[in-house]
Parts: sequence; C-alpha cells; structure tokens
Amino acid sequence: METNEPHDRLAALEERVRLLEDHVAVYRLICSWGVGADIGSGEAVAALWTDDAVLEFEATRVEGRSEISAMIDSDHQQSLVRQGCAHVQGLPVVRVKGNHALATNYSQVFLHTDDDGFETWRVTANNWEFLRTADGWRAARRTSHVLDGSPQARELLGRALGESA
Amino acid sequence: METNEPHDRLAALEERVRLLEDHVAVYRLICSWGVGADIGSGEAVAALWTDDAVLEFEATRVEGRSEISAMIDSDHQQSLVRQGCAHVQGLPVVRVKGNHALATNYSQVFLHTDDDGFETWRVTANNWEFLRTADGWRAARRTSHVLDGSPQARELLGRALGESA
Amino acid sequence: METNEPHDRLAALEERVRLLEDHVAVYRLICSWGVGADIGSGEAVAALWTDDAVLEFEATRVEGRSEISAMIDSDHQQSLVRQGCAHVQGLPVVRVKGNHALATNYSQVFLHTDDDGFETWRVTANNWEFLRTADGWRAARRTSHVLDGSPQARELLGRALGESA
Repeated sequence: METNEPHDRLAALEERVRLLEDHVAVYRLICSWGVGADIGSGEAVAALWTDDAVLEFEATRVEGRSEISAMIDSDHQQSLVRQGCAHVQGLPVVRVKGNHALATNYSQVFLHTDDDGFETWRVTANNWEFLRTADGWRAARRTSHVLDGSPQARELLGRALGESA
Repeated sequence: METNEPHDRLAALEERVRLLEDHVAVYRLICSWGVGADIGSGEAVAALWTDDAVLEFEATRVEGRSEISAMIDSDHQQSLVRQGCAHVQGLPVVRVKGNHALATNYSQVFLHTDDDGFETWRVTANNWEFLRTADGWRAARRTSHVLDGSPQARELLGRALGESA
Repeated sequence: METNEPHDRLAALEERVRLLEDHVAVYRLICSWGVGADIGSGEAVAALWTDDAVLEFEATRVEGRSEISAMIDSDHQQSLVRQGCAHVQGLPVVRVKGNHALATNYSQVFLHTDDDGFETWRVTANNWEFLRTADGWRAARRTSHVLDGSPQARELLGRALGESA
C-alpha cells in the first residue's frame, strides 16, 4: 500500500489532511448554526448556507437564504432568544466525498425557565448535506425530526451508520 | 527534534495524521453506539464491537456481540425506542497507544414525555476501550456509571485526566 | 498555490497537522475542566490553567490557579459532587493563531435528583482563551454567562462567528 516515493506519500498525506480539515469545517458550520439561532441573527445564519439551501423539520420546509434568515428574525424565534435558548449541537458523524459531505447529529434545544433552570424542549435527529464552494464549505440541506418515537426520526439517525469516510 | 531529511519528516507526519484519524474513528464509534441504541438495531450495534466485548453499567454486565445485540433488541429497549429516546454522546477525551485506544466521555439519555417535551433520564460517565482490528477500530469494553454522586462514577471520569496522547 | 518542491509541501503539511493537533488539545482541555469539576479535584483542575488565569461567570471573578483550585475544593462544589453533577462541555468552535487560541462552546450542568433522574441546572455560553506554553496548551481565561436571555450571554456566543482558522 505504501510507497517510498516522496511525491506519492506527500500527495496521500495532503489528501488525508484535507479530509481531517473538512471534518473540522463541518463541525464549525453545525455549531455556528446553533449559535446564530441563539443570538437571533438571521444574517449570520444565512451566511452558513448555499443560496438555494433547504431546511426541513417535521411538517415545515424553509427554502433559500432569505427564508432561512426570515425564520431566525421572526417574532417567534426572537421571543425564544429573549427568554434564553440554547440550540446545542452534538458531535456529528461526518462522511466526506470530494466536494460533498454528509453529517448526522443530535441536537437539543434548552429553554430558560421562570425558576432559573432549564427545560429540554426538543431533542432532534439531524441530517446535513454540505457543499465545498469557492468560499469554503456551506450547508445545502438539513432534514430534522424530533425524537418522539416516530419512524421518521429513526430513519434520519440511521443514515449515520452507512458507509464510513 | 526536527530533521530536514524528507523521509523522516514524512514518516513523522504519517504517524501524526494516523493519530488524528484514530481520534475521528473513535468519535464515530462512540456516536454510532448511541444511534444504534436509538434506532433499536441490535445488528447495527453489534457490528461496532469485538466478538468478546464487555459492557458494564452499574450492576449489569453484558458480554459478547450476541448479548449486546440481544440487549438492544429486548422488549425494554424497544419500548424506549417507541417512546422516543436519545442516547447523546459527549465529546470524548481519547488516548491512543498503537493499536489500543482509551476514551472517556459523558452521555445523556433523553426520553420523550407525554407533554411533548423531554426528561433527562440518565447522565453517565463512560470509559471505553477500542482495538484496531483488520476491519478497523472496534469497541472492546465500555464501563459506565450514572453520575449519582457515587465514587464509582467519579473514578471512571477521573481516568480522562491521565496521560495525554 | 501548491508547489512541487517537497520541502515546501512538507512544511505546509506540518503546519496544517499542527493546527489540527491544536484543535484536539483544546478539546481535551475543555473536557478536562468539566471532569475535574465533577470529581471535585482542585488540584486536577488547577493544572489545566496558567498561573494567572481568570475565570468570570456572571458577577463572579476567580483569578489565579490557587483561587480556581479553592473554588473546586469549596464546600459548595463538594456538595454538588456528592449529589451527582455533570459539567458537560459541548463541541467548541476553535480559532488558533500561533501560540494563542480562542474557543466558544456551550456547556450544561446536570444535577442528580431525589427521584433518580436529572435536572438541567445551568446552560451556559463560554468563551475560552488558551496559550501554548513550554508544557503544552493551557487555559488562560474563561468568560461565561448562563443563557438566561441576557445580552451578555449572546455577546459571548456571537464571538464564535468571527474569523475562521
């Protein structure tokens, strides 16, 4: 498998290092999504996505940067921000294929309560698709479902167990 | 420490990159365990472990792939899956030594509730052992204890603070 | 961008691999902080910080290794340890600049309850500063605020969305 020829070994290392860097870039995008939602900045969130990105969760579908931004800037989301919310993103399983990446993770939404504690409002299974663009990795699609015992949530989670990368 | 001889530098880099890849492989195995439990697939879970793997949590001991698989396929676990459960695995501290790796992490089990929220059922300290096999990394042992104030849980956690790698 | 000259390519790879290793080192420090708090070892926690490190959370300021150690060894913290507590650290967004690193993450503190479940006591936004020392990376500052809807917490979180690295 291994050759002693320095150029081949260099090229192989460069590819392996890029794959590791891709993992870190995907971690950053997923975490930044949660941060953007919790500071309530539609602009910051929109910058993470491709122009024609699609978000789907349960019966809701949001399409394109402007709709994603509007969802974060909405009265509903802004009232959660004022209450105190945390969209905590779990460590994802990432599969990179060239300029395309898939990731699966859990997320939790914690809400601040009147007695100065937190309730766990949502625990969700997320599937993400990312594209490597001229400006770096961007999220292209996220499909999510709350873990309420439904087969849809289990189907999303199960994708993490496919081929490795 | 550093030599200008390209072959030595290549070999050192190959070793460092492999160590980083080992971390990602361990992350994947730990997350996949949670996913397998939440989709309720004994077969998917069993594939993550060595033939003679051992799981211990509190007074329970499960040994071997077939017992691990049976635990996931049990009525108890399947009823949790239908209720909606999430075995969320925290970022582990990983120590790799050649073909052997240790990891320590926290996990939480969230259960869906009748009022469409979630309760935090278990928060657990986990110690993992992994082996590099001909088919890649596999989990060989997991010892866990719920963080209920007992010294056993603290002892498991404390192993994360040992030698670095 | 890329040169065929092996020495240049080696040097570039060494730098990229070091950056990835820095991420893992920062992950380890952040996780170790939570572990040290939950096993209640002031000594273990103090070893993670620089001599003149500063921790700030809400109206509290703790400065220097000995004060950090004393906080962990305090009656208050030790009673949490006996009750059963878990300082779970979320995946951080890390930015490394030479011998200095910044990280932003969420953390949760879960407390064991009398009915053998857990309550979510605190969910917090954390900003970390790390320094590369002769003994490896050490934490130099952590500024935190519970996510209670206050602008201070949002300001801390928002720092994750700055420049990439």
